[in-house]
Amino acid sequence: VKIAIIGAGAIGGYYGTLLALQNHEVHFLLRSDAETVRERGWTLHTCGATLRLPEAKVHTETASIGRVDLVMVALKTTSNELLPGLLPPLLSDETRVLTLQNGLGNEEFLARILPAHRVLGGLCSVRLNRTAPGEITHYGHGSITLGCFQRAPDPFLRTVADHFTGAGVQTQTTDRLEEARWKKLVWNVAFNGLAIAAGNATVDIVLGEPPLRSAALTLMREIIAIAQASGHTLPEQWAEFQLDRSENMGAYRASSLLDYQLGRPVEVEAIWGEPLRKAQALGVATPALAQLYAVLQRLCRINAQRTAEKA
Amino acid sequence: VKIAIIGAGAIGGYYGTLLALQNHEVHFLLRSDAETVRERGWTLHTCGATLRLPEAKVHTETASIGRVDLVMVALKTTSNELLPGLLPPLLSDETRVLTLQNGLGNEEFLARILPAHRVLGGLCSVRLNRTAPGEITHYGHGSITLGCFQRAPDPFLRTVADHFTGAGVQTQTTDRLEEARWKKLVWNVAFNGLAIAAGNATVDIVLGEPPLRSAALTLMREIIAIAQASGHTLPEQWAEFQLDRSENMGAYRASSLLDYQLGRPVEVEAIWGEPLRKAQALGVATPALAQLYAVLQRLCRINAQRTAEKA
Repeated sequence: VKIAIIGAGAIGGYYGTLLALQNHEVHFLLRSDAETVRERGWTLHTCGATLRLPEAKVHTETASIGRVDLVMVALKTTSNELLPGLLPPLLSDETRVLTLQNGLGNEEFLARILPAHRVLGGLCSVRLNRTAPGEITHYGHGSITLGCFQRAPDPFLRTVADHFTGAGVQTQTTDRLEEARWKKLVWNVAFNGLAIAAGNATVDIVLGEPPLRSAALTLMREIIAIAQASGHTLPEQWAEFQLDRSENMGAYRASSLLDYQLGRPVEVEAIWGEPLRKAQALGVATPALAQLYAVLQRLCRINAQRTAEKA
Repeated sequence: VKIAIIGAGAIGGYYGTLLALQNHEVHFLLRSDAETVRERGWTLHTCGATLRLPEAKVHTETASIGRVDLVMVALKTTSNELLPGLLPPLLSDETRVLTLQNGLGNEEFLARILPAHRVLGGLCSVRLNRTAPGEITHYGHGSITLGCFQRAPDPFLRTVADHFTGAGVQTQTTDRLEEARWKKLVWNVAFNGLAIAAGNATVDIVLGEPPLRSAALTLMREIIAIAQASGHTLPEQWAEFQLDRSENMGAYRASSLLDYQLGRPVEVEAIWGEPLRKAQALGVATPALAQLYAVLQRLCRINAQRTAEKA
């Protein structure tokens, strides 16, 4: 398969490099790292080892890539408005587009650009950081869950899953992609949100301060309620389970907190805005989510302005 | 009457000076401004005029004041733990203690130190600032509502009210002091809290950003629900009324935001903690208040640590 990766930050660079090392034809659409990766390729630091992809196919526009079998979207959701301009040169009548982005609404967004049956989604459970131009450090995990948008896995998805597996990635497919997104969102809404709103509150702080722990639980239950009202079968205990499984994470900084502290865009709409709008459409009361969204949309806007002024 | 004022910041200095100018015997317990006020008295800038009380009775401990008829408590609630030590030298068997403090729980606190029938409460609707040592600037309003703790106004309270009126303060008495506190709290919980949590959100910003406005309304409705469960008769529309009446306040900084920005203690427990604990005791669900409290108690603690490190 010929693959194009749009937005090759840490996620795109990591999975793209692993696939390219298996001799798949992988094209990277890059912006800030284009020059470096064209000269030196990608370097992955992973579990004490260093993997290199010395020659990477680097592009700065999608026209030079041309039509591909699979597009992997690894842009931040805050740049989704670029996709209608970026995708068309890549698309044949058969091209599938796989979003590896966070939060809700990304498959829906793609389904407004191409037929829904060609939209795929993936959830990445991986701790990565782009530590220098062209360099990615992998801290742990690395599994991926793939699904078709609003459909059971089809043969193409299974092929993609095989490629990921062949590249050494622990991969599973799901026939309930949306449910998997909601399950992941339960953690992200609470821990990413409170991390910023409560002032650099790492996971151990949210768990260790009873008022914050209680606030996290309330947020998680609200997300579960929206998911249930949307027809998904998240169990009530999923919230407590998420708290319990976080106990060993220590002073972990949720990814949105890292974004916030580094002055990068925070995915406010994908993580908090979209579920809130679903709740409102379904008539589910989510007062804690609504307040968190209200606070975050303002804090993150101020943060972005501050970053722009510094630059 | 002989009056002692404990904690003569802006509120204590303002009302104390007005009463002293009417030839009441007013003793001020001061800390940081003691030297200045002893030398130069109080200066009030009010509505374009300047009032002076050149000779003020200044004390740095309550023992030198001795027994009084009325104690006015104008300490910040964050210093309430000082009261059991400060009050005894002032108390005869008849002394009344009037708390002019913000939030909930202050009369209850006093009723653990002296008999409940000698506890009075007052709500100040006044915009004041201590602009220099011994100097207070009055920006507007100035009315006061006085009541007896858990009782209808008694003759003593009416006498105090007459003294305030005689000093030029618009004064009213209420036989529903607790209800008046809840009514005031509705505004304070929402606007003071979101002002800090959403990053310097002045009143116009909370009103003008739909997600924040909606969050304010939700918080107000939760406070009304707790008040109603406590047996008070706040109408549902009190929330919308509070939003509407705030429209002309412009870029007003709620007092807790000012405290926060100046690195002063924020009255987190009196304004958010006490109503939350009442809600929990009564089984009233207040997810928005709980989250706001969780965030504020941490933000304000960090703020206090930062201030202490600077000093």
